Amino acid sequence: MVNERMYKLGSEPSAIRELFAYGMARKAEIGDENVFDFSIGNPSVPAPDAVKQAVLDLMEEPPTELHGYTPASGDPRVRATVADHIRRCYGVDATPGNVYLTAGAAAGLAISIAAISQPGDDVIVISPYFPEYKVFIESAGCTCVEVPAHVPDFQLDIEALDAAIGRKTSAVIINSPNNPVGAVYSRDNLEALAALLERKEAELGRKLYVISDEPYREITYGAEVPYVPCVYPRTIVCYSYSKSLSLPGERIGYLYVSDLMDDASEVSAAVAGAGRALGFICAPALFQRVIERCIDEPSDVEAYAANCTLLTEGLGALGYEFVEPQGAFYLWVRALEPDAQAFSDRAKAHELLLVPSDSFGVPGWVRVSYCIPRETIERSMPAFKQLMEEYR
Amino acid sequence: MVNERMYKLGSEPSAIRELFAYGMARKAEIGDENVFDFSIGNPSVPAPDAVKQAVLDLMEEPPTELHGYTPASGDPRVRATVADHIRRCYGVDATPGNVYLTAGAAAGLAISIAAISQPGDDVIVISPYFPEYKVFIESAGCTCVEVPAHVPDFQLDIEALDAAIGRKTSAVIINSPNNPVGAVYSRDNLEALAALLERKEAELGRKLYVISDEPYREITYGAEVPYVPCVYPRTIVCYSYSKSLSLPGERIGYLYVSDLMDDASEVSAAVAGAGRALGFICAPALFQRVIERCIDEPSDVEAYAANCTLLTEGLGALGYEFVEPQGAFYLWVRALEPDAQAFSDRAKAHELLLVPSDSFGVPGWVRVSYCIPRETIERSMPAFKQLMEEYR
Repeated sequence: MVNERMYKLGSEPSAIRELFAYGMARKAEIGDENVFDFSIGNPSVPAPDAVKQAVLDLMEEPPTELHGYTPASGDPRVRATVADHIRRCYGVDATPGNVYLTAGAAAGLAISIAAISQPGDDVIVISPYFPEYKVFIESAGCTCVEVPAHVPDFQLDIEALDAAIGRKTSAVIINSPNNPVGAVYSRDNLEALAALLERKEAELGRKLYVISDEPYREITYGAEVPYVPCVYPRTIVCYSYSKSLSLPGERIGYLYVSDLMDDASEVSAAVAGAGRALGFICAPALFQRVIERCIDEPSDVEAYAANCTLLTEGLGALGYEFVEPQGAFYLWVRALEPDAQAFSDRAKAHELLLVPSDSFGVPGWVRVSYCIPRETIERSMPAFKQLMEEYR
Repeated sequence: MVNERMYKLGSEPSAIRELFAYGMARKAEIGDENVFDFSIGNPSVPAPDAVKQAVLDLMEEPPTELHGYTPASGDPRVRATVADHIRRCYGVDATPGNVYLTAGAAAGLAISIAAISQPGDDVIVISPYFPEYKVFIESAGCTCVEVPAHVPDFQLDIEALDAAIGRKTSAVIINSPNNPVGAVYSRDNLEALAALLERKEAELGRKLYVISDEPYREITYGAEVPYVPCVYPRTIVCYSYSKSLSLPGERIGYLYVSDLMDDASEVSAAVAGAGRALGFICAPALFQRVIERCIDEPSDVEAYAANCTLLTEGLGALGYEFVEPQGAFYLWVRALEPDAQAFSDRAKAHELLLVPSDSFGVPGWVRVSYCIPRETIERSMPAFKQLMEEYR
């Protein structure tokens, strides 16, 4: 018999998918350039030329080795390169044995949660949050406990976390720079989290992990992004090259079990086991080698920064309320009525595709992705103006 | 706290991994050419030139789309190409909507099992069997029920299956051409399985799925490999290009929910859900497109056939007993003492690396992989001779 949970996950309506399908159909109808699609998270900046060059060079190597299985945790040379990169960038001594190459950050998250939780545990997420967190948490047999971010700055709400962490908590998932809000957690904020978790570990007599989902680490507009393992040792970093090198479809990233935690070797073994259990054999081999060659390639943040300025200045002048973005490529905009879905539907009439915040576990906002062509933002401003006027 | 099951999966001793590590160390010590490593399953035939050409051509396309996310089930054009391929090769009308591109056959297996089982179900495997089947079955909360293959031909033992299938059975996993035995199930044998499952479905009032793991489909030495969905409609095919195109590290394959089953659309929805639940976002994008271009590329079976002949003639002349291989690239050889591990250890003293059958759930045999250079097989014969003499 078909598994009911899997059937639901595969067939449940999703505002993001429906908006995507609507956008495809609408573009076919009235032309791409007439639909202002702010719904997507696919980087609009192309992968750097160095990626292409690396692929072309690698294709000259003997194919049997190039396309062959690597160890489940990844090619040892690539793991060493990643460990060295962590050491150079963040000043912590990273052991290659605690680096596990993954098929993107999603795989890293699913593996991490499975590795450090027991069925029945609570895993805390900060709402609004990336909806797949809940899916992965429930796959591990755990409960997704939503703790709202602090409003209006969308930093971690330490008091709310204090109240939520209990005898069943195994981990807190954080994501900074944040999807969907664009916030970056400050050093003070992360230090307060660390102090709270250390106190709670002592009080509860159990280990509390931070799972730090960091695909947007390099995409920031001036804010410092502290390296979480340096602030709180019991941290697993889930990194992806999807955004920094614009390779989301290639599924390449890594998971790093901080050497600073006292149980790093046990956690790394459990990570290897969870990778097996979930059906990951190894991260794609060619792109493991591409990463080895392109690891120091800078991300092209300029295009996103320019889009960000254009959008915030434009919407600001029109009277929209939003969270000032510090990173990632999303603007979190207050809906002009309490029902975000209804607001998103009215925006559609102006050819504006905005994701309602209900998809991220909170009411009353929309997510506006600006990883899109600059012209689309420029040309969308009259539509945003008309939408605002409708509500006056 | 670290999850106990994941920790065990990540740290348990494995004869295959230990043999691999031993081989690496031994080769470093006495030279690659002096170790006769029959332990691996990495194809020794290089990927065809067409794969290289496809990658080089594709790298000229705009990178944003080329490396971008595809839908979770895969690029629609590639799914259509795979469906068309199934139609042309096996004469069944395959709908692209029932094709789901996966990160290799392992992902397809983990997803299929999760999609059509409930926790507490039994999933049947035919021993000897690929050890990860059990891992994936247990990840879905199910029990792995081992039914021995029929000896001496290693076909499906229909009587034993009849006895094993009960009110908790959800699926039977079959693998033909078979790893580790090299058997190919005959049409008669598969038809007997289909008749049994149809009778059992009626008796038990529940659906019984076949999960057909087919990475070795094209690697055969004359035997017919019937297309399982044509024999039994309630079949999910898990295919991989790991062996046919020698791309095991790139993690590219597909899962096909037979259009002939009455619940195909529910199963396809559950497959999509299970893919989400396990953390698969999409199959690697570049290699999806490579498959689109190389789908009709023939596998180079000649090299394996030549190795097979060399090995079976050589070992036959020395008096070894083995199963005559019909496909894949493994020879299943009777150990010269009841304890396969002890036999494998004594073989090591002659620099022969042979995988003990305990890894595959049965005692008394070793698996000899012949996806290796021809010269290694030629040069290993004196060692096999000495090993045999030790037991005389």
